[in-house]
Amino acid sequence: MTVRIEDIKQLREETGIGMMDCKRALTEADGDIERAKEVLREQGLELMEQIGREAHEGRVVAYVHHTGKVGVLVEIACNTDFAANSAEFLEFANDVAMHIAAEEPLYVSPDEVPAEDLEQEQAEFRAQLKEQGKPDEIIDKAVEGRLARFYQDNCLTKQAFVKNPEVTIEDMLADLRTKTGENIYVKRFARFAIEVAGCPDPLLASS
Amino acid sequence: MTVRIEDIKQLREETGIGMMDCKRALTEADGDIERAKEVLREQGLELMEQIGREAHEGRVVAYVHHTGKVGVLVEIACNTDFAANSAEFLEFANDVAMHIAAEEPLYVSPDEVPAEDLEQEQAEFRAQLKEQGKPDEIIDKAVEGRLARFYQDNCLTKQAFVKNPEVTIEDMLADLRTKTGENIYVKRFARFAIEVAGCPDPLLASS
Repeated sequence: MTVRIEDIKQLREETGIGMMDCKRALTEADGDIERAKEVLREQGLELMEQIGREAHEGRVVAYVHHTGKVGVLVEIACNTDFAANSAEFLEFANDVAMHIAAEEPLYVSPDEVPAEDLEQEQAEFRAQLKEQGKPDEIIDKAVEGRLARFYQDNCLTKQAFVKNPEVTIEDMLADLRTKTGENIYVKRFARFAIEVAGCPDPLLASS
Repeated sequence: MTVRIEDIKQLREETGIGMMDCKRALTEADGDIERAKEVLREQGLELMEQIGREAHEGRVVAYVHHTGKVGVLVEIACNTDFAANSAEFLEFANDVAMHIAAEEPLYVSPDEVPAEDLEQEQAEFRAQLKEQGKPDEIIDKAVEGRLARFYQDNCLTKQAFVKNPEVTIEDMLADLRTKTGENIYVKRFARFAIEVAGCPDPLLASS
């Protein structure tokens, strides 16, 4: 049977387990999400409890573009120093730092977006559509889509990875959690760019 | 004649010119600050106007401690890319990033400290001294001293440089301005540290 993409995504979001494992479990469970969770549990992928575990270890990683005009500092948390020293963890950390330099997210995840910014964004868009005479149910769908796009544009976890747009940063985190068996997440980041007059993209500013 | 340290400091603060040049100018001007400014102007050290000039160039520099548990990102502004590429500038930038990792300043400079934090700090200390029955003029002096110490502890520009406590970061900036003839300042910084349980200083946390 074919497993629905939405179900894979939902299972991944609820468990923090990688996309591929979720797909396999759903196939085995004939598409039933609750049964798929059991399949994952039986396979020892008991991450659901770990996701809640506070992560006190981690790494601080920096990336400075060769021009010296854009730099990123990122803190990635995990449960043990063992995981923080693993090649997968460090590769992810360096990839994410480079990604942030290129893609300029404003927030780590949707929870960080101030509620008033979201409400304003939605209210303005809704008013616009209303003026265009669109029916309410179409407006609801459109606002939902707009919100999803806002998150994809501005929230690190929802962004498509710059080196492989097939996966999001969230997908990469989920895979890393499965591989390491730890609660791994991006805790915070800073991105500084020198605003060179006449050059809107500091990644392109020559050194 | 001997030049007063306070006058050197005042001249340096007013002009942004390095300590050594200020001392020389004051000696030549028999300790008169206004005449010393003229001496500096005659010598082509016309930095007074430059200090006001907005600095649109610069560098973003990162420092990550070898443990991977403390990292710093710092943006240093200057007027031209030429200065930003100079060895002195880059040496200063790297030194400052390392300094921030070690000394944990909270603000770039005293202007950044929120007014209410300062007032609270002063009011509490004043009340304490009052309770001890200290006379008002002693209290004023003591509060002033306490404030200076607060800045030295928490403001990057007022901190003694970790590799050479004889000079402050402000002194180093003043010297750099004199050497390059540009308005150079620390624009912002971020410092992330993994808080490892049981180890208060992340610089000491082993990797």
